[in-house]
Amino acid sequence: MSLEVSSPSSDTLKSSKLPDLGVAAGINLLSAFIFLVAFAVLRFQPVNDRVYYPKWYNKGVRTSKTARRSLSSIVNLNWRVYLHFLNWTREALHMPESELIEHAGLDSAIFLRAYILGLKIFVPLMIMGCLVLIPINATGGSIKSQKFGEVDIGLLAISNVFDKSRRLWAHVVMIYVFTAWVCGMLYIEYKNVMLMRLNFHDAVDRRPEQYTVLVKNIPSDPDEPLTLHVEHFFRVNHPDYYLSHQMVRNANKLAKLLKRLESLENWKIYYKNKQEREPGTQPRTKTGFLGLWGEHVDAVQWYTSAVEQLRREILKERERVMDDPKAVLPVAFVSFKGRWGAAVAAQTQQTKNPTIWLTEWAPEPSDVYWPNLAIPFVELTIRKLLMRIVLFFLVFFFIIPVTFVQSLASLDQISEKLPFLKPIVNTAFISSLIQGYLPGLALKLFLAFLPRILMLMSKIEGYTSLSSLERTAAAKYFIFLVVTVFFGSIFTGAAYTQLNAIIKEPPTKLPTLIGNGVGYKALFFITFIMIDGWAGIAAEILRLKPLIIYHLKNTFLVKTEKDRDKAMDPGSIGLNENLPQIEFYFLVGLVYSVIAPVLIPFIVVFFAFAYLVYRHQIINVYVQEYESAGAFWPHLHGRVIACVILQQICVFGILLSKKATKASPMLILLPVFTITFHLYCKNRFEPAFRKYPLEEAMAKDTRERAMEPNFSVKNYLQATYLPPALQIEEEDEENVISREDKWSEGPPLVPTKRSSRANTPAPSVTSETPMMRETIL
Amino acid sequence: MSLEVSSPSSDTLKSSKLPDLGVAAGINLLSAFIFLVAFAVLRFQPVNDRVYYPKWYNKGVRTSKTARRSLSSIVNLNWRVYLHFLNWTREALHMPESELIEHAGLDSAIFLRAYILGLKIFVPLMIMGCLVLIPINATGGSIKSQKFGEVDIGLLAISNVFDKSRRLWAHVVMIYVFTAWVCGMLYIEYKNVMLMRLNFHDAVDRRPEQYTVLVKNIPSDPDEPLTLHVEHFFRVNHPDYYLSHQMVRNANKLAKLLKRLESLENWKIYYKNKQEREPGTQPRTKTGFLGLWGEHVDAVQWYTSAVEQLRREILKERERVMDDPKAVLPVAFVSFKGRWGAAVAAQTQQTKNPTIWLTEWAPEPSDVYWPNLAIPFVELTIRKLLMRIVLFFLVFFFIIPVTFVQSLASLDQISEKLPFLKPIVNTAFISSLIQGYLPGLALKLFLAFLPRILMLMSKIEGYTSLSSLERTAAAKYFIFLVVTVFFGSIFTGAAYTQLNAIIKEPPTKLPTLIGNGVGYKALFFITFIMIDGWAGIAAEILRLKPLIIYHLKNTFLVKTEKDRDKAMDPGSIGLNENLPQIEFYFLVGLVYSVIAPVLIPFIVVFFAFAYLVYRHQIINVYVQEYESAGAFWPHLHGRVIACVILQQICVFGILLSKKATKASPMLILLPVFTITFHLYCKNRFEPAFRKYPLEEAMAKDTRERAMEPNFSVKNYLQATYLPPALQIEEEDEENVISREDKWSEGPPLVPTKRSSRANTPAPSVTSETPMMRETIL
Repeated sequence: MSLEVSSPSSDTLKSSKLPDLGVAAGINLLSAFIFLVAFAVLRFQPVNDRVYYPKWYNKGVRTSKTARRSLSSIVNLNWRVYLHFLNWTREALHMPESELIEHAGLDSAIFLRAYILGLKIFVPLMIMGCLVLIPINATGGSIKSQKFGEVDIGLLAISNVFDKSRRLWAHVVMIYVFTAWVCGMLYIEYKNVMLMRLNFHDAVDRRPEQYTVLVKNIPSDPDEPLTLHVEHFFRVNHPDYYLSHQMVRNANKLAKLLKRLESLENWKIYYKNKQEREPGTQPRTKTGFLGLWGEHVDAVQWYTSAVEQLRREILKERERVMDDPKAVLPVAFVSFKGRWGAAVAAQTQQTKNPTIWLTEWAPEPSDVYWPNLAIPFVELTIRKLLMRIVLFFLVFFFIIPVTFVQSLASLDQISEKLPFLKPIVNTAFISSLIQGYLPGLALKLFLAFLPRILMLMSKIEGYTSLSSLERTAAAKYFIFLVVTVFFGSIFTGAAYTQLNAIIKEPPTKLPTLIGNGVGYKALFFITFIMIDGWAGIAAEILRLKPLIIYHLKNTFLVKTEKDRDKAMDPGSIGLNENLPQIEFYFLVGLVYSVIAPVLIPFIVVFFAFAYLVYRHQIINVYVQEYESAGAFWPHLHGRVIACVILQQICVFGILLSKKATKASPMLILLPVFTITFHLYCKNRFEPAFRKYPLEEAMAKDTRERAMEPNFSVKNYLQATYLPPALQIEEEDEENVISREDKWSEGPPLVPTKRSSRANTPAPSVTSETPMMRETIL
Repeated sequence: MSLEVSSPSSDTLKSSKLPDLGVAAGINLLSAFIFLVAFAVLRFQPVNDRVYYPKWYNKGVRTSKTARRSLSSIVNLNWRVYLHFLNWTREALHMPESELIEHAGLDSAIFLRAYILGLKIFVPLMIMGCLVLIPINATGGSIKSQKFGEVDIGLLAISNVFDKSRRLWAHVVMIYVFTAWVCGMLYIEYKNVMLMRLNFHDAVDRRPEQYTVLVKNIPSDPDEPLTLHVEHFFRVNHPDYYLSHQMVRNANKLAKLLKRLESLENWKIYYKNKQEREPGTQPRTKTGFLGLWGEHVDAVQWYTSAVEQLRREILKERERVMDDPKAVLPVAFVSFKGRWGAAVAAQTQQTKNPTIWLTEWAPEPSDVYWPNLAIPFVELTIRKLLMRIVLFFLVFFFIIPVTFVQSLASLDQISEKLPFLKPIVNTAFISSLIQGYLPGLALKLFLAFLPRILMLMSKIEGYTSLSSLERTAAAKYFIFLVVTVFFGSIFTGAAYTQLNAIIKEPPTKLPTLIGNGVGYKALFFITFIMIDGWAGIAAEILRLKPLIIYHLKNTFLVKTEKDRDKAMDPGSIGLNENLPQIEFYFLVGLVYSVIAPVLIPFIVVFFAFAYLVYRHQIINVYVQEYESAGAFWPHLHGRVIACVILQQICVFGILLSKKATKASPMLILLPVFTITFHLYCKNRFEPAFRKYPLEEAMAKDTRERAMEPNFSVKNYLQATYLPPALQIEEEDEENVISREDKWSEGPPLVPTKRSSRANTPAPSVTSETPMMRETIL
């Protein structure tokens, strides 16, 4: 079985006409426009304020003014504000970057730079493509012009150039120019991000993780309990620097109980509210699962007693966790007297046996993923191996439904299989709709529930920080997107025997196959960009799901201001989904920048629009759970480099299939240069993201000793590295406050004013932004 | 163009008959026997004593008894010793391993374990193969039996089994058994070697490199000279541990001058000796190149003055190197007060910029490769890239001459191209000779000068220690052997278009191609083993080249005992040549263990014989330049794992070509298991070869402080890390003493008895070996 793309059917060619494109673009622009208008209207309603500006509530800058339910507290009747419905774009761009870092954290600011990088790369590529490549392609004359009005986008692509044409040299020159430009931009941005990270570390004087090392796989000792064993080990081997340690206790069961408590309390409040609203009635429920069956009981009473009982259970479990030596895991957070001591312990091997006493930098307290701390070393290897196998199957067999739906979207097949649909399908409009819209939409739906699976897989692999979980899930998602969406779309028609077919072809034919496939898929990717990139981003700003959930909660559960705080769900950026998306657009943009430059404007619009929307969301909505200071940039950089190399392979393939025997070998050196550039960048910049240099640690220690001779690190660090389930004190409400909150309140018992300033950027500056003044009116 | 192996010509089949094998075996056994007899006789002659026992002279255990030249000092006339001519094998095995480590160093002992590993793996494989696979193959009945006496070795191989036969399941089961056995042995040996290394480090109390870190890429400072800059940097960032440092000076020119001096002095001595022997004459020479042209002069006078002049030049150059600030390179050996401080500095990053102040463990003083210390960071990336490209071309275009010679060795072609040779070639004996002997010999000759090129390439890549140079050169050589010798021989006939042909085939066909090729090449590899493995090892023990050179030097240059010491050339093991050789035999043995088990006995004989010979040579001859405590074992382990995977691919291919559609998919899980096993071993054992754990460093520091409170590290380390060219004092003779000697004398100014014991194993024990008593008679 060979791949069909090498002999594109007339059907595929027919589908790449401009009218189809017009319909798809129309639908997508329309839906994007509807989302935006809905957002513009909804965000002015005070009742939605906590959905569209939760971050300001979290920071305490905004509060609900009145508990009284008047019309004006629900709907905004001031018609003049609606004239400014597009103001949010200006507002989003207004905040300078330094302020943004203080307001939303460095991770968010660096995440936005990924879009800036996209613009920096693709705007010049678009200009060069339009000025050089499109004229050359358009006058190529290989595709015979059809009826007036039927303009084929192939006319503007490399497919319009004759085989063996000397015009192909232009493409060779341009890919060299493009690669040089992309590498230049990548270098500049990597350097910028590294400097931002270093400055951030310089500016933030004191953070608990600077003093702390995570020690895993502590061997048990028959003569003494684990905690003494840890103390003795570090007192002996780091005598001048060891300060204290905190054993990790297995609070997973406790965390589960707390979660159940939250749910029970929600039900209790729901029924109490119901009772208050209708004073006479007594709400009843059944004791079985979800209240669907079982004995009929008084709901309020039943839930009150259930909550009481669970609370007692939780108290008992908490005592058990704190006292039972079996609850102590062989993992500890060890703190040192100075940053130098911690830097040394984190970067060195402790014992002869490299599988015990493993030290690494402690993640930021809010970045720790507690459930994974107890996985033993041997198991990790097996888990990683298993997950690799699972990923392989996921990637290569997930392709089946996608290609199936895509083949459905080919009209002839629909007419064949469902003959009664023939008259409808043959209508011009419906035909265009199906051809242009469905394949992309089907794909998008398929992709919607994937990130959760991939995140679960990363959790199984055993990473111990949220940031690394997100990064590794992102890496998996990118592989998936490249194989399933990119190659899957290129080789469409070959159905699920793709992989099989590909490995049966000689490797030398592969670039030709890819090149051919890429050439005929420009239209598909344009619709994909419009659905996923344009309409998807517009849907992001509307926040339809959090909006509905908030109003449901508000109606049934909210009584006090605190309840309303709980009901907000600001969410976070979700690097595990967004990074691979960005990387995928880099891939599509780069591949088509030479082959069909007509696609690049769509990419540019995506990057610009996404930049705008995410800047707005980062300022007003998302609350990052942790701060990794841009630890994901090396990941992004490496993936973009991979995209550049894929681009080179695709162009090489196109040139081969165009029989440019003299021009195509010119491209062989490009990947070598690109990889060398990557290695150079890796050596030059990556250590700044992985290690903590001793010089810096020593400088800060020295400064600290000079400025605050009485500063006590021990007090500063006390109870910082406790699992969230154990941090709850007498007040039960505290367990619902998000971790970010605890962080912004500063760790407990911080004696100096200075450190609390470093931890929580003062909100006083940000409250001055124009957006605030306008929307609080 | 497709590969010819898939349709083997009748010629190839014809060549794999037993009589050809017999001739080849006969020739090789004969030459091996001649070498061994020559060795047995020559080693008893006192005049050769320094060629066959140089190590004992180096250690000072043996000395020439008399300066008088009597017959008995040249030839051994005691006929009884000749009866014991095979005693050396017993002697070689007699020394226990612990003593061997003390006598020859850990590297040598661990090197011998590689052969032990070979025996441990292949003896059971041979037994299993003979008991299970050979009977199954022999009764396969696919190859029709020929005339009586003409037994085809194919009869004993998998090729005798019918396609789709159920007998093939036996091979599937056996490869699982074999892989499990190989992995088990690899695990045990890796663990053994790791323990040997750790024990060695434990036992040797004090070594300069434990206190010292090599710092590269020191940035220049406009305000202070480099040496002050280094001191300030480490005083600030390692205040409690920094002790002293030694800047590296560029003495490359000085080293060159010293080399020229040695040559000139040799000529001077040569002419002086000539004059003394014939008192009347006055030897004359010409002043031009090699004395071939130019003015006629008095030789003794001319060389005396030339030596004088060069000495003055050297003195001046040495002064310049010591005083000129420009001779100071941005590289330093920084020493610390304790091992803990050095371990910390070596394992941590010093500054934000990861390309400056690079720290790494200092190599052992005798292991430093001085010329490479000055290469800047950026250049290293480029050099490595370039060398990779060169290696690629070397590997793939070196194939041209080899396949050319091999195709010459096919009789029909010889008769065709050189018709006048036809009558000779058609003689049965000559025909067998050419078929069996020539291909292997041609290859061996080609390979002879390759290691030097590869070593040069590693030097260009910029490694800074001799041990890493040898390891990387070995890695290159292994790639070369696998591609050129192994695959080159398998795909023979395909000439230099091999690579081209392979990439034009679909990847799924590749295992079949390899499998087919492997099947028909068993005979070739048997002759190769006999020539390279048997006769080659026998030639190694004869030491023909050092023997001739020593006697030439002895005749023309030697006057004093010291001169005779100089004339000895004990050499070293040469890991860069021997490791890949061992690894290659692992590859051949593993691949054929399932396909044609008849080959395994040849491999077993090789490993046993090589073990014997190298043990003898290590005890009596080789003087290792450095001690890396088995740092090459991870390299060897990784390569053997690669061989196991290649074996699995080959067997998979054979099964595919035998159309075992049900059996062959069973093999797909094997590489996955093998790689997982490798990763586990890597995590478990490799850090012991790369890092120095803090616990150990601290324990030794503490012990040292307790035992020798007055020990001065500074005095101990003084002048240890000086380039050899700068270590020469007033006496010129010292420059000729090998570095090993300097090491065994112990670093200067060592105050304690203990450390000097640690550095030089006392020769008193080893002088008791029976060998000594017998041969000194």
